[in-house]
Formats: sequence, C-alpha cells, structure tokens
Amino acid sequence: MAQVISGKEIAKQLKSELAEQVAVFIQNNASVPRLAAVLVGEDPASDVYVRNKRKACEAVGMESDLHRLPAETTQDELLTLVAKLNKDDAVHGILIQLPLPPQIDSDRVLRAVNPAKDVDAFHPENVGLLVQGQPRFLPCTPHGVLQMLKRSGIETEGQHAVVLGRSHIVGRPLSIMLSQPPYNATVTLCHSRTKDLAEVTKQADILIAAIGKPKFVTADMVKPGAAVIDVGTNRTDEGLVGDADYAAVSEVAGAISPVPGGVGPMTITMLLFNTLEAARGLET
Amino acid sequence: MAQVISGKEIAKQLKSELAEQVAVFIQNNASVPRLAAVLVGEDPASDVYVRNKRKACEAVGMESDLHRLPAETTQDELLTLVAKLNKDDAVHGILIQLPLPPQIDSDRVLRAVNPAKDVDAFHPENVGLLVQGQPRFLPCTPHGVLQMLKRSGIETEGQHAVVLGRSHIVGRPLSIMLSQPPYNATVTLCHSRTKDLAEVTKQADILIAAIGKPKFVTADMVKPGAAVIDVGTNRTDEGLVGDADYAAVSEVAGAISPVPGGVGPMTITMLLFNTLEAARGLET
Repeated sequence: MAQVISGKEIAKQLKSELAEQVAVFIQNNASVPRLAAVLVGEDPASDVYVRNKRKACEAVGMESDLHRLPAETTQDELLTLVAKLNKDDAVHGILIQLPLPPQIDSDRVLRAVNPAKDVDAFHPENVGLLVQGQPRFLPCTPHGVLQMLKRSGIETEGQHAVVLGRSHIVGRPLSIMLSQPPYNATVTLCHSRTKDLAEVTKQADILIAAIGKPKFVTADMVKPGAAVIDVGTNRTDEGLVGDADYAAVSEVAGAISPVPGGVGPMTITMLLFNTLEAARGLET
Repeated sequence: MAQVISGKEIAKQLKSELAEQVAVFIQNNASVPRLAAVLVGEDPASDVYVRNKRKACEAVGMESDLHRLPAETTQDELLTLVAKLNKDDAVHGILIQLPLPPQIDSDRVLRAVNPAKDVDAFHPENVGLLVQGQPRFLPCTPHGVLQMLKRSGIETEGQHAVVLGRSHIVGRPLSIMLSQPPYNATVTLCHSRTKDLAEVTKQADILIAAIGKPKFVTADMVKPGAAVIDVGTNRTDEGLVGDADYAAVSEVAGAISPVPGGVGPMTITMLLFNTLEAARGLET
C-alpha cells in the first residue's frame, strides 16, 4: 500500500511554523499582516472558500477583512474598490474570489491588483517573474503540491514528473516550477490533445493529476512506486472525488495524496504564506 | 536524407509578407513603424547583431534608430534613455542589445521598458501574458522555431515535442508555447539535470536543441523520422556549429534545420513582426 501524503497534516505543520513567523513579524513591525478578501455575489461555494481563508488567516495571527459586494456590482465599482485597497497601507494582500459575475471582465480586475499585494500570484507580472526564476509570490496550489513532495521526502531532482492538465492556475505553473531549481525535475506536460496518454504517465516518477475528471487516472496508468499527487476536487454523487481512482492507484503507487485532505488544505496555507510575504515586502 | 528546414528561405518569405503589411500600415497611418536599438559598449558581436537588425528593419520598410552609449554608461543614464524612448511617440519598439556592461543591472533595465514597446518580449508582464495565453508579443526565437515547423508542414498537435534546454530566452518559452493552442504538443522539457537523456530524446517526434553545446545531439539520440530544430549557434574552430551533429543526425531525422541558415535568420524576422505589432498597438 502506498504511503499517504496527507496535505492536511503537512498544512497543520506549516501553519504552526507560519504562526511563529507571523508573531515575529508583528513584534518587529508596527503592523499585523492583513488580507482583504473581495467577494462579489452569492455563490455558496465561494462563500465557504472565503470564510475558510479568513478563518485560516486569523488562526495564524493575521487579520482579514471581507468586502462583500452584490451580484449586480459593475466592473467600475469593483475596480474602484480594488484601487482603494491597492492604496490602503494597512492592507497587504488582496484576494479576489473567483468566479466573478458575467458582467465583469475577470482578467481586467485581476490585472488591476497591485502586483505587490497579489497574493494569488495571478497578475501577469507575477507570472512572468515566476517563469524568469525571480518569483515575488509562488502560486498557491502549485506551491502547495511542491511542499507536499518536499515534506514527504520525495526527491524531484532529475526525476521524471508528468503533469496532467495545463490550466493557468495549476498545471501550467506547476510544470514550470517543477523544472526549475531547486526542484530540477524533467517535466512532461500532458493535456486533452496528448496521444497515448497512459504510455506517458507510466513513465512518471511523479504524477500530478490536475484535469478535473473524477477517477480519470487508473492503476494501469501509474508506474509501480510512483508518487501521485491528486489536485482534482470533483463534486460527484459519491462526494468529493479526486482525479485519480484512489483505491486502485494506491495499490500501485509508492505514495499518493488523498481527496479530501490532500492538496486542498495546502492551497489555503500557501495563501497565508504569501500574505506574510506581502506584508514583509511592503512593511520592511 | 532528412528534409532541410531552411530558416533562411522561410525568413525570406516571411519578410516579403511583412513588407506588404508594413506598406499597408504606412498607407493607413500617419507613421512608419520605428525600432530604437540601444547598444552600450563596444562588443563586436553585439555590433553586428544590431547592424543586422537595423538593416532588416529598413529592408521591410520600417525605420530604425541607433542609440550608442559608451561602455562606462551608468545605470541611471541608461534608465534615462529608456524613459525617453518610452515616451517618444515616434518610437514603437525598443531593443536593448544584450549583454550590458557589468555595472548595469540588466533585469532592472529590461523591466523599465514600456511593455507595449518591448519587442523582445522580455518584460515579466509580457512573459506572464504569454503564459496566460494572451500574448502581447511572442518571444522572437521561439516564435521563429514555431514558424519553421508550421511552414515546413510539420504537425505539432498531439505530437511529443522534447525541448533540450530551459533558458529564459529559448527553451522555457518555447516549451510553453508548444504545449498551448494552436500547437498543442505534449512537451517534455529537459535540462542539465535530466537523467537518461537519450531515452527521453528518442521519444521525440519533434526535438528542439537549445543547450549551447556544439554537436551535443548525436544520431543515436534521435528517433528515425523526427523533426530536429537546432537553436545552437556555437562559435568553434570549425566555424559556427549547432547543438546537433548535423551530418550524422540528418541521416536519421525526417527533417532538420541547419546552422547557419536555420533559426538565426528567423529570430531577426520575428523581431520585425513584433515591431509592426507594436506600431499597430500604439498607433491604431
């Protein structure tokens, strides 16, 4: 049976380390790291996400504000709020909860966020700095995956990592980061147009599933002993299900992360790190 | 014997198309696309590069200026010039010839260029926009390689492309672009830490050599029938030599680009396209 990579446990450990760093920051500076969360409309899932992020912030000693706007908010109104938060010296991180209502151009809003407060690392400037090996912030979910590998003692250097899915939020940045120092993996990025997918995934020492298809990765697609990180969070009749067929794959893999309790808790944790980083960048 | 992918011929064809587009632009606008080249110091190779870029500009009907600064130029002096060119409405593209002298922080200077005039696509914002699938400018050498594949009838969709070398200027952006629409290749990025390199390269339908090691890619590393694009330009006692052992590899490959006469002429050509793109963005 595979080693279970518990994101939940690793996140707990990281948050306890972070709480210490936050305490030191507060001691050395006249301010408390502060995250401003912006929530537009009434999506229940978004509501839960934002509440969890704020709770997590406060649990490590940081502050958070919620800016709740009605579903019919115009783009100009939202941009006005973003401009205000950009200028507010007490705010270190700005989180725009996605999705935004259809009348709003999400790209335009995300690009209006001051890159120095862009704790989701979605701003093109921050994406470019990451690609150039000089990141200001690391994108949260990819960073969480890398921490899970690192803290589970899984070597990446010279290993063949196969990333399934080329999304802007997970697969793409993770494929880039895995192939950079200090990770230095040989990385193959697969997607919907990849031919003979199982032939590729079976070569992976490290397999990242981030395609959003429940139980897509089956045991015959996995090399015996491989580490499998499952980024999928698919809502199904069986509840929350990952992109890998956990029961079957864990018979073959050397290590695997579960869903839930895997990548999910890591994403929020890395957002907290970025908020502290933002405060450090702006205050010190 | 392999089909020869002549960058020289493809570049000639592209430049003739470009000259027509430039003529149309000039007819429809009150201005001529204009590239400002900045050259600091006396490096003879840089001198040749800049001269060739300016000549190529003028050959397609665009204008170019040369700003030549002494080797002892300070960073502030260079930043002042960049700021002036950023503001000059007659200048559409700004090219900072690298390398810059050691007293100058190249990153800082490249980031000072107005992203709308950044025809080398080196600014983090432009790198980020590229990664997010909304490029303002395509980086010149990677774009040249993609045009060589396209205009040689080499299908990329679903094919396995292996990129050797993760440089910020070639390997990294090319690996990203190859895996995006419309190219949609399955891409593996290899580098100095890759284990069993030949095992990986032998799987490539398309092999890109961009590591800067003369004749590094040998025939036994290439799958019969593969397309090999050689980005290497290594100055050796034998003259300019690519990253592939051309004579031997061309016995195995289905198609191969030579050095010289391969990627080299394409890079300049794509810079010209970006200069016209910049003029379109700023004038229309």
